[in-house]
Amino acid sequence: MCELLGMSANVPTDICFSFSGLIKRGGGTGPHKDGWGIAFYDGKGIREFRDPQPGFDSEIAKFIKDFPIKSTVVISHIRQANVGDVSLENTHPFIRELEGRYWCFAHNGQLENTSSLVTEEQRFSAVGRTDSEAAFCWLMGQVAKQKNPSENERQTLIKTCADKLASLGVFNMLLSDGKRLYVYCSTKLSWITRRAPFGVATLQDDDISVNFIEETSEDDVVTVIATEPLTTNESWVKMQPGELAVFELGELVEL
Amino acid sequence: MCELLGMSANVPTDICFSFSGLIKRGGGTGPHKDGWGIAFYDGKGIREFRDPQPGFDSEIAKFIKDFPIKSTVVISHIRQANVGDVSLENTHPFIRELEGRYWCFAHNGQLENTSSLVTEEQRFSAVGRTDSEAAFCWLMGQVAKQKNPSENERQTLIKTCADKLASLGVFNMLLSDGKRLYVYCSTKLSWITRRAPFGVATLQDDDISVNFIEETSEDDVVTVIATEPLTTNESWVKMQPGELAVFELGELVEL
Repeated sequence: MCELLGMSANVPTDICFSFSGLIKRGGGTGPHKDGWGIAFYDGKGIREFRDPQPGFDSEIAKFIKDFPIKSTVVISHIRQANVGDVSLENTHPFIRELEGRYWCFAHNGQLENTSSLVTEEQRFSAVGRTDSEAAFCWLMGQVAKQKNPSENERQTLIKTCADKLASLGVFNMLLSDGKRLYVYCSTKLSWITRRAPFGVATLQDDDISVNFIEETSEDDVVTVIATEPLTTNESWVKMQPGELAVFELGELVEL
Repeated sequence: MCELLGMSANVPTDICFSFSGLIKRGGGTGPHKDGWGIAFYDGKGIREFRDPQPGFDSEIAKFIKDFPIKSTVVISHIRQANVGDVSLENTHPFIRELEGRYWCFAHNGQLENTSSLVTEEQRFSAVGRTDSEAAFCWLMGQVAKQKNPSENERQTLIKTCADKLASLGVFNMLLSDGKRLYVYCSTKLSWITRRAPFGVATLQDDDISVNFIEETSEDDVVTVIATEPLTTNESWVKMQPGELAVFELGELVEL
């Protein structure tokens, strides 16, 4: 059961996502009956697909499956609605622009009392009614207040904010500005880094499979982050509660 | 030749867009070789598709063609790149969140000296390099500064800003907060309102055709805005330079 899925790579990687499990279980019978979304960075631009109510005939899932999209950062989310009704505006990932970059966010878990985060003068506001988007808007407001931070200062701030959000409940998070991928673990997240040559590599669970069609060069590096390891014959790094991992160009950035 | 296309309707309308002309002319031979994009509001949420480099096999255009999307506000843009290279981040429409609503913008024309609009402390920044996105960010910054405006005050501000932008060049614009659709004419834009019963109605030019699959009730109202009239046997309203028209639920809002 995969709720969050992220990717960071050092070259635009042809990646095929197959939501085969989702499609099979569509129509309200599976645990993830409440939609899914995926965002692909392409340069500084971002491409997003969302399907609030997947069914057997989910057209968007089929489209993504057949259409490989080159990307260096991917964030995907499969939703179990617990707060907010099932609608497009409540479907992750969420996106906001700050300082000329699109920031993208997806969250697994549930937070209590996110309304306490809302202030009168906040820069970013939630469009939908999820605890997740409220948390994202608060977090982005904090990031916006930090003027000309170093990468380390920004990272420290994001860790501090994520810790605070995790104190409100369960907060597993993927966040990116298109360059770095910030991964915060509250209860469960694992990652694995693969280096060329990986040929046609498939990572798979019931919900999702990821195919790296082919590497571009012998220097290709791709990291995949998922709620649970997608393979059993490889060593995934299991993150610890309260841990923030940051990836750039497929590599773990040293904290 | 249609560069901007907009729709406003009073019920979520099953609308099919066919980019048949675009697909036919893909591969760099047509006048609109530089991509297209479309955004559909669904409630407060928004769904967007962008294709920076259409070709004969444009997968996204095919997908949109086969997949009717219910929406009350649609903004679409076919690009002729004159500023900014052909890339995802330079592809219209552009989106920003303000006050808990997604604002969507597309522009036809060319503006000089948009860099003069950029200030140190501006709230919204361009991600790409187009004059259009710079204009949008400036415009949204002005809208954000207006505190608790009435609809009329907001409309007046948008008209004033659009006049200023039009003074920098050619500025035909579609702008929406998901509720209202603001249409500003600098050189050419036309619109038509259709009321039920319209059966299967088709609007078509070389680039694009719009099918209203069927009306939901006898009260259905749909307005379509396009660079040039899409039909010749109907009376389209041709907008005048410097005119702002505002639509809500398919109806023209009296100024």
